[in-house]
Amino acid sequence: MNNIFRVNLSERSVNQVEVPESYQALGGRALTSQIIYDEVKPTSHPLGENNKLVFAPGLLSGTRAPSSGRLSVGSISPLTKGIKESNSGGTAAQDLAKLGLKALVIEGKAEQDNQVLVIDKDGVRLEEDNSLAGLGNYEVGDKLRQKYGEKVTIMSIGPAGEYKMTAASIAVTDTDDRPVRAFGRGGLGAVMGAKGLKAIVIDDEGAPGVELTDEDAFKEASRKFSKIILDHPVSGEALRNYGTAVLINILNEAGGLPTENFRSGRFETANKISGETMTETIKERDGKPGHSCHPGCIMGCSNVYHDDKGEYLTAGFEYETIWAFGAHCNIDDLDYIAYFDRCCDDLGLDTIETGVTFGVFMETDMIEFGDKEEVKRIFDEEIRKGTPLGQILGSGSETTGRVFGIDRVPTVKRQSIPAYDPRAVKGVGVTYATSTQGADHTAGYSVTANILKVGGEINPLKKEGQVDLSRDLQVATASIDSTGLCLFVAFAVLDSDEALPTVVDMINAQYGTNLTVDDVNELGQQILNVERKFNEKAGFTKAHDRLPEFFEKEELPPHDVKFDLSEEELDSLYNFS
Amino acid sequence: MNNIFRVNLSERSVNQVEVPESYQALGGRALTSQIIYDEVKPTSHPLGENNKLVFAPGLLSGTRAPSSGRLSVGSISPLTKGIKESNSGGTAAQDLAKLGLKALVIEGKAEQDNQVLVIDKDGVRLEEDNSLAGLGNYEVGDKLRQKYGEKVTIMSIGPAGEYKMTAASIAVTDTDDRPVRAFGRGGLGAVMGAKGLKAIVIDDEGAPGVELTDEDAFKEASRKFSKIILDHPVSGEALRNYGTAVLINILNEAGGLPTENFRSGRFETANKISGETMTETIKERDGKPGHSCHPGCIMGCSNVYHDDKGEYLTAGFEYETIWAFGAHCNIDDLDYIAYFDRCCDDLGLDTIETGVTFGVFMETDMIEFGDKEEVKRIFDEEIRKGTPLGQILGSGSETTGRVFGIDRVPTVKRQSIPAYDPRAVKGVGVTYATSTQGADHTAGYSVTANILKVGGEINPLKKEGQVDLSRDLQVATASIDSTGLCLFVAFAVLDSDEALPTVVDMINAQYGTNLTVDDVNELGQQILNVERKFNEKAGFTKAHDRLPEFFEKEELPPHDVKFDLSEEELDSLYNFS
Repeated sequence: MNNIFRVNLSERSVNQVEVPESYQALGGRALTSQIIYDEVKPTSHPLGENNKLVFAPGLLSGTRAPSSGRLSVGSISPLTKGIKESNSGGTAAQDLAKLGLKALVIEGKAEQDNQVLVIDKDGVRLEEDNSLAGLGNYEVGDKLRQKYGEKVTIMSIGPAGEYKMTAASIAVTDTDDRPVRAFGRGGLGAVMGAKGLKAIVIDDEGAPGVELTDEDAFKEASRKFSKIILDHPVSGEALRNYGTAVLINILNEAGGLPTENFRSGRFETANKISGETMTETIKERDGKPGHSCHPGCIMGCSNVYHDDKGEYLTAGFEYETIWAFGAHCNIDDLDYIAYFDRCCDDLGLDTIETGVTFGVFMETDMIEFGDKEEVKRIFDEEIRKGTPLGQILGSGSETTGRVFGIDRVPTVKRQSIPAYDPRAVKGVGVTYATSTQGADHTAGYSVTANILKVGGEINPLKKEGQVDLSRDLQVATASIDSTGLCLFVAFAVLDSDEALPTVVDMINAQYGTNLTVDDVNELGQQILNVERKFNEKAGFTKAHDRLPEFFEKEELPPHDVKFDLSEEELDSLYNFS
Repeated sequence: MNNIFRVNLSERSVNQVEVPESYQALGGRALTSQIIYDEVKPTSHPLGENNKLVFAPGLLSGTRAPSSGRLSVGSISPLTKGIKESNSGGTAAQDLAKLGLKALVIEGKAEQDNQVLVIDKDGVRLEEDNSLAGLGNYEVGDKLRQKYGEKVTIMSIGPAGEYKMTAASIAVTDTDDRPVRAFGRGGLGAVMGAKGLKAIVIDDEGAPGVELTDEDAFKEASRKFSKIILDHPVSGEALRNYGTAVLINILNEAGGLPTENFRSGRFETANKISGETMTETIKERDGKPGHSCHPGCIMGCSNVYHDDKGEYLTAGFEYETIWAFGAHCNIDDLDYIAYFDRCCDDLGLDTIETGVTFGVFMETDMIEFGDKEEVKRIFDEEIRKGTPLGQILGSGSETTGRVFGIDRVPTVKRQSIPAYDPRAVKGVGVTYATSTQGADHTAGYSVTANILKVGGEINPLKKEGQVDLSRDLQVATASIDSTGLCLFVAFAVLDSDEALPTVVDMINAQYGTNLTVDDVNELGQQILNVERKFNEKAGFTKAHDRLPEFFEKEELPPHDVKFDLSEEELDSLYNFS
């Protein structure tokens, strides 16, 4: 029996409401974006009481579908001021789904900070715990597990969210109870902070679990889908062996690894921060490669990284993080980068936004590129303490550029461009420019056909075919983000004709529906249209579907390429809307 | 012989070009906005080399038309990211017009900072003076007068412009050679700073002067216009007697003086900072009320303010400044406010943007409302030195709100709302919301009919008639801003049927044209349309023609009014476009 739970923090009320007919077929991103569109005025202040936070597990979350533990959260982003769907792994999606929550809608603003929302088989209740004030996510977890039990899942904000920094994330605990999975992008930790909500505790003990209409059909489809994933060289092997950081060498080789704030596509000492080096280091120090962030994940792209004394330092150490603090900042010391990752997880900051921000900050005369000691000092002394400099850097690249008068800032819709240079991987450049989410590689991961030769092959240095590629991927991604499946299943989906029908089989077996592959495609388009309409009302136009001008002006070595898609070409992305 | 001078700082070139036919009838704002529209891509980074700065004297500048010494500057605003026309008094407009400059277009970006542009009867040349680095506008003036002569006019930036702060102004010297007039709004000092241009020196010795087609007709019209201005109680008396600060008591009485960051429309100790108190203080200390900022100004709204030892402290001490640092920040000490005014003039910061920013900053727990000592410390120790906190506050209210996570920020299109609460003076609220310039009282000064009973009478607390009023004023203002006439002539223009025809008579007598009053009205509409089209291409939509939501939510004492114009009503403002 699925329900939507509404928590109004201004009124301190919790309401359980039935799922309206029109929301029945929606989950994950489809549901969060639709509820935000239906209920929140697009010009509302992201940190005001009219904004909402909507959590929704994917359609398949809580089942035994492989790697189906993604949770979506929707809101107006304090970073972009547009609609935002951020999604995270960890154990929350499965717990919420098993407890029968179709969606959790957080409204209003508490009078007092340090609110804690507790969700268990008896329902949802609001508590307060002032001892959590100012604590990092690691310590928050320790305290809450003492109080609510060792097995609870915790979603929480660190100091960054409390400071309402626009790069603030919401942490989600993983299978080892560590706050290393995150709703990273878009600053939604600041929305949670503005609402006075410090943490959400989820206890799935005694949860009814997810009903399946046709158990046998589900089991068969699920088994088949697992095999498809495991048979693919990326999702079945490379990710488990080297983590997402396997991409460092690949992108560096391709000349698309943005280095020194997007001045080059090659980082001379890339090998020192590569996935291969990372994995070797992890093994030497008795860490763990090939870690799964939620039960039932069969790809295991995550890891546990120990310091040089063999003590736990961080986990879920990803390509984008290593790139952002590494090549982008000219830092080639994996232990330092791991420490910065740890800081971001504990403070509750998006590693991509924060890393890119440091690279932008390195354009000033206050810090040099490569100065890892100063980055460390700033994390410990400035960001954690919320000093003015800490507040600036916690606000992301766009604001940092604005405050320091820098005109070379890699952002789209105020969100930092991640780890693939749009000039040398033009397909992902199209995604950055046009996504409803601001610059976001996951919104349409054209790195597939551009670099990895997955789902076809398109010359990354040429503009031909890139708009069609990005469009197809953005539509498909919106659908996948609604299923609860990890986006990494896409590698297999793109290369196997059987994959998408099998996903549809699982959904039909669970819900007793008769969906087709076409329906899934239509759902993706529908999601993008809803998000785009919302953004339009919030004040976004085609003028925002553009890369910063320096990508059109400056040539990127080693291929000496510029971003050369015309405005008309970019605008043709939404030809279905 | 009028010419346009183009200075390209990247190429270090100066080109004198003939005025194209289509620009012949344009001056001031009409010309700056048209050139920016024609030549600058709206999505260019405001601090990048593709942005331009266009200075243009008004059509009547340089003549003996009364109070016709206003100079316009156009650009993309680093503050709003839209088109900007800022205009200033001082002696620059008359000098440039007499030297035959129809417009001065600054392009590109110098490799070295501290460029100085020298304009005299022999032309325009570029020099460099590294001894100016980091100096405030007062000292810059002293040094440049030593070098180029005591009588030169100087337009310069202070440290704020060099730091590229988005609240940075461009200072213009007045009749006493003090840098107290300013292109305040929109952060154009940062554009000048980004271009590496520290100062523009203008020497009008031997200037050919402005030709008049029909000298007698001009003299007659000019004399008539002077009489109209002097016969009006506001422009002929109140402004000279009490300066613009005469408005403190008037707005306080009307319940529209925004107090403590727009929490009330009444400031308990308003009398301590009123125009009457200011004038009394000035007289006691041998300062000067009724001062003119340029030769031939017959209104004399300016002043010279001495400290309690009788020494010069500041000049051009205005209502908006006194309000911003006064009522808005809960500070009722005129000497402190005068010191802050001096700091802004010297650092090169817009007093409105900076004062409003302090009030927003007072929402944090880093400073209390009313803490004048801390404001002083921040000016001296943070902003002047360009510390992180200084850089934040120098970036204006919107960025300060963003950095510190404040959701109660009085801005429209990222520019701070000035000294009239939009709930209690609804006509000016309409102007704030809809102006192409961001929140700007001068763009359509509905305070006239709302409060001053000039040009009719409309209940300021009601929405009826406000859109029509604001529209008429915005159109008229765009025209006036193109003539070089000070906007304060509008008081007389609104109350005298003879005034506008007389302005047209002066223009016709100067240029030998046959313009009518209808043409002037059409010109105003044309300017607004051009600016609006530019903003549309820059990414502005109706969603940006809105006040912050708290004005619709919070009642303003003492009248307990909200801003209640609907979106449709606001959008009807541009029904002529």
